[in-house]
Amino acid sequence: MVKVAILGYGTVGSGVYEIIRKNAASIKRKAGDEIDIKYILDIRDFENHEEKQLFTKNFDDILNDEEVKVVIEVMGGLNPAYDFSKAALLAGKHVVTSNKELVATHGTELLQIAQQMNRNYLFEASVGGGIPIIRPLNQCLAANEIEEIYGILNGTTNYILTKMVKEGASFDDALAEAQRLGYAERNPEADVEGHDACRKIAILASLASGKFVDYKNIPTEGITGITKSDVACAAKAGCVIKLVGYAKIEDDGKVFARVCPMAIPQTHQLADVNGVFNAILVHGDSIDDVMFYGRGAGKLPTASAVVADVIDSVKHIDSHIRLMWREVKENFMMDPEEVCSRYLIRSANADLAERFIKAEIVGEVGAETAFVTGPLKEKDMKEKLGSEGSFIRMLS
Amino acid sequence: MVKVAILGYGTVGSGVYEIIRKNAASIKRKAGDEIDIKYILDIRDFENHEEKQLFTKNFDDILNDEEVKVVIEVMGGLNPAYDFSKAALLAGKHVVTSNKELVATHGTELLQIAQQMNRNYLFEASVGGGIPIIRPLNQCLAANEIEEIYGILNGTTNYILTKMVKEGASFDDALAEAQRLGYAERNPEADVEGHDACRKIAILASLASGKFVDYKNIPTEGITGITKSDVACAAKAGCVIKLVGYAKIEDDGKVFARVCPMAIPQTHQLADVNGVFNAILVHGDSIDDVMFYGRGAGKLPTASAVVADVIDSVKHIDSHIRLMWREVKENFMMDPEEVCSRYLIRSANADLAERFIKAEIVGEVGAETAFVTGPLKEKDMKEKLGSEGSFIRMLS
Repeated sequence: MVKVAILGYGTVGSGVYEIIRKNAASIKRKAGDEIDIKYILDIRDFENHEEKQLFTKNFDDILNDEEVKVVIEVMGGLNPAYDFSKAALLAGKHVVTSNKELVATHGTELLQIAQQMNRNYLFEASVGGGIPIIRPLNQCLAANEIEEIYGILNGTTNYILTKMVKEGASFDDALAEAQRLGYAERNPEADVEGHDACRKIAILASLASGKFVDYKNIPTEGITGITKSDVACAAKAGCVIKLVGYAKIEDDGKVFARVCPMAIPQTHQLADVNGVFNAILVHGDSIDDVMFYGRGAGKLPTASAVVADVIDSVKHIDSHIRLMWREVKENFMMDPEEVCSRYLIRSANADLAERFIKAEIVGEVGAETAFVTGPLKEKDMKEKLGSEGSFIRMLS
Repeated sequence: MVKVAILGYGTVGSGVYEIIRKNAASIKRKAGDEIDIKYILDIRDFENHEEKQLFTKNFDDILNDEEVKVVIEVMGGLNPAYDFSKAALLAGKHVVTSNKELVATHGTELLQIAQQMNRNYLFEASVGGGIPIIRPLNQCLAANEIEEIYGILNGTTNYILTKMVKEGASFDDALAEAQRLGYAERNPEADVEGHDACRKIAILASLASGKFVDYKNIPTEGITGITKSDVACAAKAGCVIKLVGYAKIEDDGKVFARVCPMAIPQTHQLADVNGVFNAILVHGDSIDDVMFYGRGAGKLPTASAVVADVIDSVKHIDSHIRLMWREVKENFMMDPEEVCSRYLIRSANADLAERFIKAEIVGEVGAETAFVTGPLKEKDMKEKLGSEGSFIRMLS
């Protein structure tokens, strides 16, 4: 029997508890050993919990208990999650997490310690909630050079944008509805400003490139500026607007990453990913395109990804699963201003399109003319555009 | 350095060779060791091959060479693939395969031998070509009870049906086009009669249920009988026709599996999977729905799945990755006649719909009336229908 401890009894933590208890028999069959929860760490009281004896407020109870082999960090935030995770790994315990902020910030160090200790630091749940993506990227697609990885990484913003596209809602109304349904936080900044998607694409880009991509170096725009006119404009161009986390790995090892709203052609697989669903598309040199689709958040989907990592830790109780990126000193990030894209532009100046080669006018929205440009560098587009209109990048 | 041997230098075999040579550096980084091809077994001559010294026609060269740790069986067919795979495992070598027929027929025995020998028998490429599905099902979704798994498992038939649905082609014309493009074999029976999809859903159902599901017990219908009228009829009901491999695992452990053309609502994620693409949807108790999408066949996608398994074997060179189903004596397959579904029916008898509760007429196709029934057992539907019309099962 392998003893584990859960750090944090919030949404995900209680889901992990629930799944380990409910699916105990099949988990035992798959892990090859019984998994038992010995502690749950939380600063709050859970006097009415059916297993209240499991709760502790003192992390040292867990750290100093040699019987605990796997620590499940689902508290979120950088502190004390970082200290706890590091201490647990250094004590020879496996650590499993859903904490994207911690992985995106201190992942390199924690992965290194795990390797040195011959233990594992696993984080399937940190990206895409229940959608398997970290392990497929690390294992199933290992024979590929990953050239591109991108997708809809945040369910809250996708719910809001779906409302805006399908029902013509305004951003404010769609956000209010998302909050009412519990899909958005009271303070929605982390989601709507793109910070959440930014952490996730940083993790994916790090894994795909093998080099630590610091989320602080990823230009990030949220969806708070998206208007009904943008949505209408995109529709005229046969597109829908989605918040996309995007990363590209060039042949020379340079990495480009960005989070921003993009106009996606309706024929693209991502265009049909609606509501709180997420989808991640991987383009590898051998595999061509593969897409992973599912619920990117939620108690049980996220918890099931956490428990899958716990099972994997138990299967590798005395060994390290190769899962790594390295810190690279020199700057390998591409200058985003130098990156080529097509753009959907709208402007009150009906002649603006003439400044762009291969521009195609798609229609009028209010007093503005909308057109799609051919591919050009961002800095060149901005120079031509000046302050005469607004743009949305196109995915294609 | 780990030495491997490739059995069969056909489409997949040459793709495996190509990927191992081309991506040698990154494969080494991911596997933690260099992977080198020591032999290629093929009965044909490859005198002009740049590494012709690798070729042998004698399997014993490989079997008796202790340096060869991983055997890559990509020859297809039952014999001699079965004998070679078994002998290699018994000799303490890992075996990696893309051979769905062999896995679906002798998988139980080969998996057992692998376990006894503390080696691995891996078959990611046997289902979904390059799409990661076996490993996600076995690992990432391990915390779930899988309740349903189904999808578009055959690219050839999906190409043909897409042609029929999108362009109004007849089955014969669409098949001829698929053959011209190399998407269908000269003898297309294995694809168009559903045999290929049947082997694949048998493998998925076995993994999901943990019990060997014999493909011979899976009722299988192909697409040769699908007509323009069926397509038109489905369109009236807001559906497209796809060949679906379907498996359901009941709470009591009973398994239902079937391969047949189904009418899929246009709003369903699978409805947009077109051309040679495949997609597999998994419904787990915690995860809800997850979908995996990509190229289900083709030289490099399939070969990249094979090489991923080779990398995994190298990472577990002295250990067994738990991947298993067991043979169960008693019959656990549900009687397909007892299974409930909705049906899309067309009949020259305009009053036929009245025999069905909750039937909804969707329109006229030629001289026939098309309607959708409420859910009822297949045997009851057939009794009411008699010989007065034809039906297609609905996915919903």
